[in-house]
Amino acid sequence: MTEPVDLVLDAARVVIGDGSELVEASIAVRGGVIVGVGGTREVHALFEATAVHDYSHHLVMPGLVNAHTHLAMTLLRGYAEGVDLQGFLERVLAAEASLMDPETVALGTELGAVESLLAGATTALDMYFHAGAAHEAAARVGLRHVGGQLFFDVSATDGLTWEERIEAARRWPAELERIGGPYVPAALMPHGTYTVSPEHLAEVEAVAEEIGALVHVHASENEAENAEVLERHGKTPIAILDECGILGHPSVIGHGVHLTDADVALLSARRAAVVHCPVSELKLASGLAHMARLRAGGVTVSLGTDSCSSSNDLDPWVMMRTAALVATTVAGSPVSLPARDIVAAATSEGAKALGMGDRIGTVRTGLEADLIVLDLDQPHLTPIHDVHALLVFAAGRADVADVFVAGRQVVKNRSILTVDTADLLARARARVGEPDAASQPWSPRN
Amino acid sequence: MTEPVDLVLDAARVVIGDGSELVEASIAVRGGVIVGVGGTREVHALFEATAVHDYSHHLVMPGLVNAHTHLAMTLLRGYAEGVDLQGFLERVLAAEASLMDPETVALGTELGAVESLLAGATTALDMYFHAGAAHEAAARVGLRHVGGQLFFDVSATDGLTWEERIEAARRWPAELERIGGPYVPAALMPHGTYTVSPEHLAEVEAVAEEIGALVHVHASENEAENAEVLERHGKTPIAILDECGILGHPSVIGHGVHLTDADVALLSARRAAVVHCPVSELKLASGLAHMARLRAGGVTVSLGTDSCSSSNDLDPWVMMRTAALVATTVAGSPVSLPARDIVAAATSEGAKALGMGDRIGTVRTGLEADLIVLDLDQPHLTPIHDVHALLVFAAGRADVADVFVAGRQVVKNRSILTVDTADLLARARARVGEPDAASQPWSPRN
Repeated sequence: MTEPVDLVLDAARVVIGDGSELVEASIAVRGGVIVGVGGTREVHALFEATAVHDYSHHLVMPGLVNAHTHLAMTLLRGYAEGVDLQGFLERVLAAEASLMDPETVALGTELGAVESLLAGATTALDMYFHAGAAHEAAARVGLRHVGGQLFFDVSATDGLTWEERIEAARRWPAELERIGGPYVPAALMPHGTYTVSPEHLAEVEAVAEEIGALVHVHASENEAENAEVLERHGKTPIAILDECGILGHPSVIGHGVHLTDADVALLSARRAAVVHCPVSELKLASGLAHMARLRAGGVTVSLGTDSCSSSNDLDPWVMMRTAALVATTVAGSPVSLPARDIVAAATSEGAKALGMGDRIGTVRTGLEADLIVLDLDQPHLTPIHDVHALLVFAAGRADVADVFVAGRQVVKNRSILTVDTADLLARARARVGEPDAASQPWSPRN
Repeated sequence: MTEPVDLVLDAARVVIGDGSELVEASIAVRGGVIVGVGGTREVHALFEATAVHDYSHHLVMPGLVNAHTHLAMTLLRGYAEGVDLQGFLERVLAAEASLMDPETVALGTELGAVESLLAGATTALDMYFHAGAAHEAAARVGLRHVGGQLFFDVSATDGLTWEERIEAARRWPAELERIGGPYVPAALMPHGTYTVSPEHLAEVEAVAEEIGALVHVHASENEAENAEVLERHGKTPIAILDECGILGHPSVIGHGVHLTDADVALLSARRAAVVHCPVSELKLASGLAHMARLRAGGVTVSLGTDSCSSSNDLDPWVMMRTAALVATTVAGSPVSLPARDIVAAATSEGAKALGMGDRIGTVRTGLEADLIVLDLDQPHLTPIHDVHALLVFAAGRADVADVFVAGRQVVKNRSILTVDTADLLARARARVGEPDAASQPWSPRN
């Protein structure tokens, strides 16, 4: 007697996300949830599917988790070149002030959500202004979008007062319910300890307590930030966050490139997670994050792309590959962090960082079916001696053929099913008045 | 009165390869050579084409130059994980000894040539055993393949004696002529100063003089290599190469990560070029090459992927992006090397390094038509604020739609025209007996 399910995926290989893998394996899904994983014959003996996907030339794995980004900044892709973090903030904040109304944030987030899903990133922790507009856009596209109210001391791009930010934060759980889309936890996002005062951070903490929210904050991204915070407060950013009670909540620290041993011990004791964004950290010359050191200290380490102004895309494969390369470089040794740990950082550990380890990030019975399907019939994926090394050092976004979020297919044959892409690209180009190339005289035969 | 040509490419954007770009521009090609570049109306007023390609949603640029690789090692992709350079050589040389006969080298090179062309790399400097078999395979696929005799003191994988290597080197120009394919210079490839004695290097130099060859050699890849050479000879690898006369020829130094100021001055004085292979150098923890320092010292710096055992693919876009990220990191500043210089390193400077600056590497009248065409209608390539930053930090191999080498189209709609890909992948998998995944017990509902 077989059990009815919505779909079964028959794969050449299944990468679980915890370091292990299966060959000639199948995954059964019902109501958006994985109800069986195992050998293909075994799964078909147990389940009767409405739809069976033949992935006999494919690899199925958990959707990738981008644990730190600013999606709407797709519209500022390549807008701030050749600057460090402080120069970057100066240039970008000015552009945002004139560009980023709620409608434009929705447009940029829609573009970012489509780019993410096409690349196999099914979840994003997205810190940006106009969180409601962003969340509606991303949820409509089908991304698992962890958004939430952004906090600055000053009235920034969105023109909100501090009190308005706090009020919006209180309303966030109701907003999430109204908007719908794949499950995500509520989140609050104070920008950083150099942009939000300890008193304000304590207020954010109180709201997090009230609504049961995850807290996401930038900290110790580069040495200049640390120096500024130390001079102003006499403490490291991590010490400040702990004193304000932020680390006592489920919390995710963006970057954490320059941490003291005491910072690492605090993060570990409080079970706070760190998001390493290797491309952005290298591009802005912020420094080399030390994943192996944090992991050895008991800290959950996830990975992010950061924004398209500093990264300059949302490619989770380049994120993984660069993280692996940074890990060997900072350790001075190629054995510091095996490829399977990098894959875990972008799947199971990423989910754990966002407080969703029991929901997504692993191909396991009982978890939601966030699954991506890679087409293995590619010269650059042939042959396979080590499947985790293949994923980290050779696979790329264009290898992702199909994508499912909570069992719903959102990408098929490398095309997004939920959006008219040509229309989206036209709207994005029109909004920023895509500048013409710097044309220079060039005559035939010169 | 218009001149007849074979084809005209009408492009939304043309990136020249020297840092400049054109919008709504066209390229006229006759006999494999670019005969006109300029505004679309202007070019069509001058030339009448047999075939016109509508690339109005595309960017056309020079084919990328991979200035250091070992193509046949595609078959050992991911075979040596978690090892440094010395551990890598130990593991890989043993595998090569049992695997790499001429037929297998041809197969691995064919796979590498297909992977390269699909990714937009139209030229490769390929150091490997059985150079004739490799060159025949790559030329047949349509790659501009700079191969040549490899030299080790000891009888290596190919079983040749020193005298047989010297003889094969002397015959190389005749071999190149016999085999045909896109123009390439003759090259000789002593492996390194820790594997070839100064006396033998002097013999190679004499043959280079005799046949007018480019010399390609690994040098100063990591600190252990430098220490070994210093201890044995009392000199740096670069100083040895200069004393043997090698640097007096057109010469290309693989890696050059750890160079003294005197080394840099020597390379500049002799007009020797360096090939930085950022992914491999980071993955093996060899160190951070300093492109800006070399460029400031007057040295031509090109880029390479290195082999698929250390890299683990032949992606010239990841090569460029990683080179840019290493440049900011080693300089401690994001302004050290603009994106246009990275694009130049992979196009015009790469061509110059290989002694082909007057043949390829730039979109310019009189040069051969090695051209690649990127499909700009992609979310991750939208919008465009800075086209060179887009190429370095957002574009990828799957954006390459069409590829021309010396005017011959070898890739169309992301498919290779010269090879049956399915058959090639099957032959590659069969040859290495692609290992099954490490299956572990995983039952449904566990």
